[in-house]
Amino acid sequence: MFSKVLIANRGEIAVRVIRACRELGIQTVAVYSEADKDALHAEMADEAICIGPAKASDSYLNVQQILSAAIVTKAEAIHPGFGFLSENSRFAAMCEECNITFIGPKSETIDAMGNKINARQLMIEAEVPVIPGSEGDLKDVTEALAIADEIGYPVMLKAAAGGGGKGIRKVMTKEELPQHFKSAQQEANAAFGNDAMYLEKIIYPARHIEVQILGDDYGNVIHLGERDCSLQRNNQKVLEEAPSVVISEQKREALGSAAVRAAKAVNYRNAGTIEFLMDETGSFYFMEMNTRIQVEHPITEMITGVDLVKKQLEIAAGEALGLKQSDIKISGHAIECRINAENPAFNFAPAPGKIKNLFLPSGGLGLRVESGMYSGYTIPPYYDSMIAKIIVHGQTRFEALMKMQRALGELVTEGVTTNAEFQLDLISHPNVVAGDYDTAFLQSVFLPAWTPET
Amino acid sequence: MFSKVLIANRGEIAVRVIRACRELGIQTVAVYSEADKDALHAEMADEAICIGPAKASDSYLNVQQILSAAIVTKAEAIHPGFGFLSENSRFAAMCEECNITFIGPKSETIDAMGNKINARQLMIEAEVPVIPGSEGDLKDVTEALAIADEIGYPVMLKAAAGGGGKGIRKVMTKEELPQHFKSAQQEANAAFGNDAMYLEKIIYPARHIEVQILGDDYGNVIHLGERDCSLQRNNQKVLEEAPSVVISEQKREALGSAAVRAAKAVNYRNAGTIEFLMDETGSFYFMEMNTRIQVEHPITEMITGVDLVKKQLEIAAGEALGLKQSDIKISGHAIECRINAENPAFNFAPAPGKIKNLFLPSGGLGLRVESGMYSGYTIPPYYDSMIAKIIVHGQTRFEALMKMQRALGELVTEGVTTNAEFQLDLISHPNVVAGDYDTAFLQSVFLPAWTPET
Repeated sequence: MFSKVLIANRGEIAVRVIRACRELGIQTVAVYSEADKDALHAEMADEAICIGPAKASDSYLNVQQILSAAIVTKAEAIHPGFGFLSENSRFAAMCEECNITFIGPKSETIDAMGNKINARQLMIEAEVPVIPGSEGDLKDVTEALAIADEIGYPVMLKAAAGGGGKGIRKVMTKEELPQHFKSAQQEANAAFGNDAMYLEKIIYPARHIEVQILGDDYGNVIHLGERDCSLQRNNQKVLEEAPSVVISEQKREALGSAAVRAAKAVNYRNAGTIEFLMDETGSFYFMEMNTRIQVEHPITEMITGVDLVKKQLEIAAGEALGLKQSDIKISGHAIECRINAENPAFNFAPAPGKIKNLFLPSGGLGLRVESGMYSGYTIPPYYDSMIAKIIVHGQTRFEALMKMQRALGELVTEGVTTNAEFQLDLISHPNVVAGDYDTAFLQSVFLPAWTPET
Repeated sequence: MFSKVLIANRGEIAVRVIRACRELGIQTVAVYSEADKDALHAEMADEAICIGPAKASDSYLNVQQILSAAIVTKAEAIHPGFGFLSENSRFAAMCEECNITFIGPKSETIDAMGNKINARQLMIEAEVPVIPGSEGDLKDVTEALAIADEIGYPVMLKAAAGGGGKGIRKVMTKEELPQHFKSAQQEANAAFGNDAMYLEKIIYPARHIEVQILGDDYGNVIHLGERDCSLQRNNQKVLEEAPSVVISEQKREALGSAAVRAAKAVNYRNAGTIEFLMDETGSFYFMEMNTRIQVEHPITEMITGVDLVKKQLEIAAGEALGLKQSDIKISGHAIECRINAENPAFNFAPAPGKIKNLFLPSGGLGLRVESGMYSGYTIPPYYDSMIAKIIVHGQTRFEALMKMQRALGELVTEGVTTNAEFQLDLISHPNVVAGDYDTAFLQSVFLPAWTPET
């Protein structure tokens, strides 16, 4: 096992990784921006190194500074967390060149899955169902029109190098396709230096179902069941649950083996997630693979008992997976709510500031809170505004829902506005209680009828 | 299920019960003394009623006041927690008379187990092994001498109505027995108005092994495995773990069925614990039964997934147990450390005061903290000094130990002195790491060699 690991991230995920390292007897190095000198991750790690100004591009995205910090502190490995450099294949490659283990897949794997057209092609070869659409780059708008006619409108135009919602256009009719094609191409070129486009049918109504997988250096790959992340606002997940109420044991089997095939197709190593869309008939389609740990990983941990971050560290250190598919038993039901410093009454505008008094819910069986905050901490305005993830586990889904209501009711974040009330109302909504929602529910049904307390 | 429950307790157990009630949709009534007006349990409950001055005999032991509070608020049931009135059969009987459900066994059961000589006789009849000793009350010192001669010194003289260490004498030789007999009798008479005495062989070296049981109104009784509570100081448990490293699957079976026989012998209802001593050869002997929930109940919850407090509420409401013995599977390993406001450098003197800044460890898989405190809270000097129970669960005992070390390292209790450093040193001691300790280890081996940091 490593004796020292650098965590190239901040906030709750950095704290989560530091805690896992400590439990494995690994020394930790935190990196922090000037805005984060009082951040919990910097306080908690054995060593902490300032890597630059507040702006992420000058610090948490500053590859040179982070590699220098690792070299200076003699860290043997870097955990990238999520966001920032976690899916940057160039960073992973540079770690490899510096003889520092990147805790994640090989840089080629990140590349293979990062290019959406390439990933789609790989999935077709691995017999993983993909969304009906074009195969390979669209030559021109004429080809786009022909394929869209064949699969039917509406369709989604997407940039091959896409990410962060850039270079994406929803096309409702034949008439608007040419104009969208041109503007998406221009946007993609500006954002990624690559204007390759493809198109896909829009699956609607749909649920966002993703499958957690783990793979090691020895070709072992298993899945750990699915997470239902259909409750989204602006394509951002708000509340996640596992297992999904719409997935039968048989469907889980099918989804899981598709996810394992997908991972094996790219010799996947470490933790990863295959995201699928599932339509009303129960057909599922590959959307993308996230080649990193995800925000919502704890719900999978709660229902399987597998510590995914410890597994990441062990796998990166060359250990075998040590788990067979038959070892994975799903037990009970888990839900995660993301608590952000934001104002739902003002279109969820970020609301950073000083948390004068923070009381996180605790106690009872099956409650867990992941947070990088403490009483008296000032949330800086430069990064995401997550205060905590509240995760509950119950023997039944109903017990989990009741536990989440209890936990949300206990939360105190004096000094900053949060979405806790919004989450409490969401989790109490009849559709959510019944598990009857799709990816459009939160924005199209819940929010229009919801009035924030003022 | 009840619609409203009164919690006749304070501190973390009151908070624990309030949380369980809330998750079951039950309204809660807290009672509090004048010293506890800012206590978390009073803040957290739906209603809170002041029941008198700080002194426990005027408030938390004030039966009239507590029953009045229940009647006024229309509470249908009272949860007594542990300590205070939890094993007071008169209180249980008065609840019954007032048509308020006492959440625990019937008052007769509390009585039957409260008299140690009676309990011992019941256990003999139920073929539960008891410590070799006298049968029934000792007639006089002559009989005591004869029996002690037969079973061999040292022996323990005990008051039949005993509790709280009163009326108990360790007798090393024949010569000192008459004097100890007399003084113990006097003490028992003063404390309990009852000078009946019995004597037992001293089992040493021994481990304190206790078995959690659950019984319902319909004669169903199951056990939930054992807890090892051998790490004690002045007969107070300090650190508990489950399962015990000295209990094989076969022994667990034997212990468990003895515990179930014991409970069935008194038609036991609700949660209870049978405490045993186990000698070096693995023979175990009934010590006593606690007819209430115990401080260390969470470690059993962590390895079985059964919420004992919710079960208490359901059973008291007349629901069937809903669990068969074969449903109870022990998974992984759990440890609990009791964190108290006390000064180990001054013989663990209570150190109440204001917690200016409280940071409780959280996050990661398998960590749980039960506490009735918050940042800025002033611990009153009138009650026990517990700040929090830190409970960890790992897939292995080693993982649990590492997780506890991590958690203890994170704890911040600015403003008050605690035993956290002591617990950290204890859990890192080679004997504790190896699981090699008995009931005398902490006081005879660990403490004499331990130097508190100053």
